[in-house]
Amino acid sequence: MTQNAKKNNLKDQMMAIIQDDLEKIEDALVRNLKANLELTREIAGHLLFSNGKRLRPLLMIFSAKMCGYKEKQNHDLLTDFSILFEFLHAATLLHDDVIDQADKRRGKTTAHKIWDAPKVILTGDFLLARSLNIAAKTENIDIISVISRITEEMSQGEIDQLGQIGNINLSEDDYLQIIRRKTAALIEGACKCGALLANAPKNREDALFNYGYHLGMAFQMADDLLDYTADADTLGKNTGADLREGKLTLPLIKTFKRASKDDKDKIKRIIKAEDFDQSEFKALILMIRKYKGIEYTQEKASKHIKKAKENLEMFEQSDQKKLLTMLADYSIERKV
Amino acid sequence: MTQNAKKNNLKDQMMAIIQDDLEKIEDALVRNLKANLELTREIAGHLLFSNGKRLRPLLMIFSAKMCGYKEKQNHDLLTDFSILFEFLHAATLLHDDVIDQADKRRGKTTAHKIWDAPKVILTGDFLLARSLNIAAKTENIDIISVISRITEEMSQGEIDQLGQIGNINLSEDDYLQIIRRKTAALIEGACKCGALLANAPKNREDALFNYGYHLGMAFQMADDLLDYTADADTLGKNTGADLREGKLTLPLIKTFKRASKDDKDKIKRIIKAEDFDQSEFKALILMIRKYKGIEYTQEKASKHIKKAKENLEMFEQSDQKKLLTMLADYSIERKV
Repeated sequence: MTQNAKKNNLKDQMMAIIQDDLEKIEDALVRNLKANLELTREIAGHLLFSNGKRLRPLLMIFSAKMCGYKEKQNHDLLTDFSILFEFLHAATLLHDDVIDQADKRRGKTTAHKIWDAPKVILTGDFLLARSLNIAAKTENIDIISVISRITEEMSQGEIDQLGQIGNINLSEDDYLQIIRRKTAALIEGACKCGALLANAPKNREDALFNYGYHLGMAFQMADDLLDYTADADTLGKNTGADLREGKLTLPLIKTFKRASKDDKDKIKRIIKAEDFDQSEFKALILMIRKYKGIEYTQEKASKHIKKAKENLEMFEQSDQKKLLTMLADYSIERKV
Repeated sequence: MTQNAKKNNLKDQMMAIIQDDLEKIEDALVRNLKANLELTREIAGHLLFSNGKRLRPLLMIFSAKMCGYKEKQNHDLLTDFSILFEFLHAATLLHDDVIDQADKRRGKTTAHKIWDAPKVILTGDFLLARSLNIAAKTENIDIISVISRITEEMSQGEIDQLGQIGNINLSEDDYLQIIRRKTAALIEGACKCGALLANAPKNREDALFNYGYHLGMAFQMADDLLDYTADADTLGKNTGADLREGKLTLPLIKTFKRASKDDKDKIKRIIKAEDFDQSEFKALILMIRKYKGIEYTQEKASKHIKKAKENLEMFEQSDQKKLLTMLADYSIERKV
């Protein structure tokens, strides 16, 4: 089997397992926005119904089921709760796109290019508030605490990242702290909440939290790699976008650290010229190849995936475990 | 005694009652921001320590005390909890100022004119998240639900207001719904949470909620009046600012409704010329005087204050009751 065929196969297998839940998530998202003002619904819907992967709700649902969560008859609390993670995610994306002045997301024009920034900021606030409302409805203090802590972490991560814009001396540790807060916190929180909803014992709750942490870190590293390796059409946004916004990610951080004095100067020059053109970006890519910044990042991501999967070992075999394992593998192989 | 002397007297009396709590609130605000990133602290602090009235924390504290709240020895949970209402308020002010592109707030340059808008948006997000974290720490589901509902209401109110920008046909009912959500929801929530923390019986909880509702409505009406009646130096921002942003408030809504066809046309012309000058603004003020839009709004506000005070009747006499009564009176007499 070719590499591509293998990947498609993995995706098909995952789809077969998640399809039912995915449909339920889509329904719940629509239902949950229905009662709202038209404008809120439109703006939120523009992003929410743009081919999102629903990774975070799915992680919560499959974590809960793997811990033996049983739904009461005629209830679907799990799905209704799960969408809070999509709302929370969408809230940060809406604010991020305004902040980064991004033109495109998932191949679509970003919301703030259609409506204006104020409306989009407020819709983000609304989605944030709605997620906390959904959390409050569980009446489970542990879950509510997790959600409110995630929210705080994510905003701190974003502020931190903003404070580091254009800082070529950003250390690997600083980078890791930023991505833990802005990405891994939500993913580990989703997995942990699944365990909490299922009343799982502490060691399982911790294992799922750790699975989510490692998955989240790998996921963000893979995402950061795409900015250097993907082609724009597949990515749905331009490559080099992070760098143009002054965001330094691991491939370049490592390259810069390893680079000779001359190469360091070259890199600095390119980055400082914020509006670098395609040929300068290519020069940068060559530099990253020379110092193996891509490989280094891939290795780090793979190690996280290995650790993510180790945290699943204590669970008995099930469709859910299979899915969580495949998701881990898929997260570093994806092209979008 | 002159009108002004009476007002100062009221203020002095209130200050004597609240001074201790006010100091504790200031301490708690500083303490609670200490652990955070420097940038967050600076931006949040710029607004938080700019002569805020601390109305919302004070309302919560005095509601709780009036309901017999007793602090455990060596604890000050009440103050620690109360500041969430200041954080929540500050979060919305930060976002509002970005959205309205306001230059000044409380006589100071607004945060987004010093740092840039993205940092200010994120600091707003952070303060929102922090408030929900403080709520979660109470481990009281009723309180958490109130807070998350307030947050959702406020964002809906702001979105709603934005959707109505420039709509000269905004009805009084629409206006009332907007100010209930964007202002009264937080104030009624603060009062209700005080009762909840004190484990007050339902009828007292409801009375405080209603007190807060009416106070909040009157407070916002008084605020909207200032945009037409205050002088800019006292106000700390320019008069006519709301109208320049296309926000129609009760004095003008009523005037427009009562106006003759000719006058309606005049009003429309002034409003449509977004950058109306001082003489056009004065013409508008004359129009509002002619149709008694100010008086109408003052009457409405006074009725709300009367109802607010009626809701305090069931409580026995105490310093707290005295303060809440004075606050109600003060809220419609204030000049800033």
